[in-house]
Amino acid sequence: MALRSILGTMCLGNRAACCRFHLHPPHAPVRHASCQSRSGFKPERVAVVTKTTRYEFEQQRYRYAGLSEEDLKQLLALKGSSYSGLLERHNIHTSNVEHVVRSLEREGIEVQVVKRGAYSEEVVRWADAIISAGGDGTMLLVASKVLSKDKPVVGVNTDPERSEGHLCLPVRYTRAFPEALDKLCRGEFRWLWRQRIRLHLGGTGINPTPVDLHEQQLSLEQHSQAHRSDSQQRSGALHQSVSTPSLLPVRGLNEIFIGESLSSRSKSFKPHLNLLLHRASYYEISVEDGPWEKQKSSGLSICTGTGSKAWSYNINKLSEQAVEEVLKIGRSQAGVDVPLSPEFIERVTDQYNESLVFSPDDRRLLFSIREPIVNRVFSSSRQRGFASKVCVRSRCWDACMVVDGGTSFEFNDGAIATISTSEEDQLRTVVLEN
Amino acid sequence: MALRSILGTMCLGNRAACCRFHLHPPHAPVRHASCQSRSGFKPERVAVVTKTTRYEFEQQRYRYAGLSEEDLKQLLALKGSSYSGLLERHNIHTSNVEHVVRSLEREGIEVQVVKRGAYSEEVVRWADAIISAGGDGTMLLVASKVLSKDKPVVGVNTDPERSEGHLCLPVRYTRAFPEALDKLCRGEFRWLWRQRIRLHLGGTGINPTPVDLHEQQLSLEQHSQAHRSDSQQRSGALHQSVSTPSLLPVRGLNEIFIGESLSSRSKSFKPHLNLLLHRASYYEISVEDGPWEKQKSSGLSICTGTGSKAWSYNINKLSEQAVEEVLKIGRSQAGVDVPLSPEFIERVTDQYNESLVFSPDDRRLLFSIREPIVNRVFSSSRQRGFASKVCVRSRCWDACMVVDGGTSFEFNDGAIATISTSEEDQLRTVVLEN
Repeated sequence: MALRSILGTMCLGNRAACCRFHLHPPHAPVRHASCQSRSGFKPERVAVVTKTTRYEFEQQRYRYAGLSEEDLKQLLALKGSSYSGLLERHNIHTSNVEHVVRSLEREGIEVQVVKRGAYSEEVVRWADAIISAGGDGTMLLVASKVLSKDKPVVGVNTDPERSEGHLCLPVRYTRAFPEALDKLCRGEFRWLWRQRIRLHLGGTGINPTPVDLHEQQLSLEQHSQAHRSDSQQRSGALHQSVSTPSLLPVRGLNEIFIGESLSSRSKSFKPHLNLLLHRASYYEISVEDGPWEKQKSSGLSICTGTGSKAWSYNINKLSEQAVEEVLKIGRSQAGVDVPLSPEFIERVTDQYNESLVFSPDDRRLLFSIREPIVNRVFSSSRQRGFASKVCVRSRCWDACMVVDGGTSFEFNDGAIATISTSEEDQLRTVVLEN
Repeated sequence: MALRSILGTMCLGNRAACCRFHLHPPHAPVRHASCQSRSGFKPERVAVVTKTTRYEFEQQRYRYAGLSEEDLKQLLALKGSSYSGLLERHNIHTSNVEHVVRSLEREGIEVQVVKRGAYSEEVVRWADAIISAGGDGTMLLVASKVLSKDKPVVGVNTDPERSEGHLCLPVRYTRAFPEALDKLCRGEFRWLWRQRIRLHLGGTGINPTPVDLHEQQLSLEQHSQAHRSDSQQRSGALHQSVSTPSLLPVRGLNEIFIGESLSSRSKSFKPHLNLLLHRASYYEISVEDGPWEKQKSSGLSICTGTGSKAWSYNINKLSEQAVEEVLKIGRSQAGVDVPLSPEFIERVTDQYNESLVFSPDDRRLLFSIREPIVNRVFSSSRQRGFASKVCVRSRCWDACMVVDGGTSFEFNDGAIATISTSEEDQLRTVVLEN
């Protein structure tokens, strides 16, 4: 391992003490002598974690089904022109990754390119900084293995035409990455510490074993084995007493989503379909240690400021059509004569939807009930709200708690999840001006 | 088979011709001499289809996992008091079924009780009428095998404290079933022909094989086999030309739901979890043969009047919290001074939500986009609307079309679904005054 130079320091933004004394915390990367600005950032080692493109996925998938490459080409051709675009998107992504890698290497930075399947805690330890090369999903994956709040993570959107890239640098840097590197070096950026969610799991019958939803290696036979051993584990749990809440080794950058995953009635061939179905999730919720409230819904989302632009936004967002209808009814019920022009409707809709988004460094959580079911049996006081702490007790048959759409935990009847934030769970990211 | 008496006729409501001439259509059940009202209804043979209670399900499930009955009791005890209620619900259901069966037998009606697993087209053919003994889910199952618009179906809610029973008789008849029978006999009811949805499936790469999501018999090994044979079928499809649209042998009583079922990235142990995830569904939609519009959302629901009170309602319903917020913003933007009392908010909310429901015998369909994703790439003109015909072209990786939450069809990239109604698809049900 190369000796690390101790020339220069990495300035932690507004943490002036570190700058003044040119301290070199053991975890902070060291900069090269040529870039000695007190606030600049130039890592020695960068891991570039790349997404799996849809083209690669289709290849792997049909290879799994026993089809040859030739068959794959025919199948893709049969499906029509939309598939001919797959290769194009794949090439765009690959070329953008190469651009990023070359830009890094030109600066004398040691680069390791890892596909998502090979990304590990070891890679995180090795790297001074990690670049996510893909879309927001790739950023979530990258973040999932970074538990320290000091390890910088930077997202590059490798297919701006197809991906939103909320968590990535502005799209213009995708093909102008040297400019981004330059700004980083010269300190023309700011750090953004994004709050993340931590989870304690307690109650009865819990199984704190995480399941990686992006794991592609398991075969069907291994699925079966895993399922059977899971049942055996569960029967072993018969002899356990109520567990004390344990802190799970994951942090949510976007959100925790809780919901029923398996229909009570189905062991069908495609069990995952049950989530397409309207299987209600039953649970109890306590906000800020308040009274428990029974609820039934399509699920519960608890998000960070970062996540407030993601799934939570889509759960809560209103269409202009709905807003117009509400205003018309309100106008009529109130007996007032207010013109409702399209521009007016648009303004009201935009203001409403903008209120759903809050800052990534905000310590608060936003809980949202998806499609609440209110009837003779269940009621709900609020469909969404802010809190610093939310507790959920499962009354579900076969539910899961899913972190950032990537890791899931069983969350069945009797389990209790405590959802909160802590400053030490922040993720260190970069904000470059556009 | 007993000779059918031709005394009396079954009056088809306001179809007076049949009444006047005492005609006996071959498909109509015959009444007994004692009940000769021209509009009464008294079947000779009734099939009672019963739901599987959660208690029965848990028994079967843990037996499947290799646990003994003793282990099950311990497991249930460990999970706390909510499970002790399972047996209670089971007994309530069972006792209500017995009440219905005895009431029928006391009238000299031949009764066949079938569990949902044994319910078949043969049972439908045998019966003059079918009683669903369970909740709304059981009604959907019962309806799924009744393709004729002349076979009456009656729902009895066997657990009114736990089940909404929108499709069932008013709850008071659950323990007073002889009263219901009496009213039926005396013609103190009306027929309600509920419109249902029909589906044509065409386009490329389609697989018109339905998958029964409620099928409980498949073992994991059979799942694997089915999955492999499905892949082989798909490779066989390589050599097929574009199919002409075929009418599927199913009818939706509530709704058709279209959405992504399997994550592109996951073959994890619990693949069904992917539907808990925010996997966007990509498709194009054409309403009333209008222009195709690309969309991205959490899925698309197309429902009947019957279904407008079910999942569609929960997708579209607004909370008082959201309505209050919209009215506040509208008031502020318009610069008017309208008081927004809780009662006012409640009235506006109720009126809005009531507008989402329409009559079961209405021929129209209501399409709703669930959690539309509107961004740089995708746009959406309307979040919901009425139509007599909706076409959807899949641009999904691995999506499904789910009918009444019970039957699913593959709906992958290139497939085109045409969704409409036809009078011959109606389901004949009963409305009793409360």
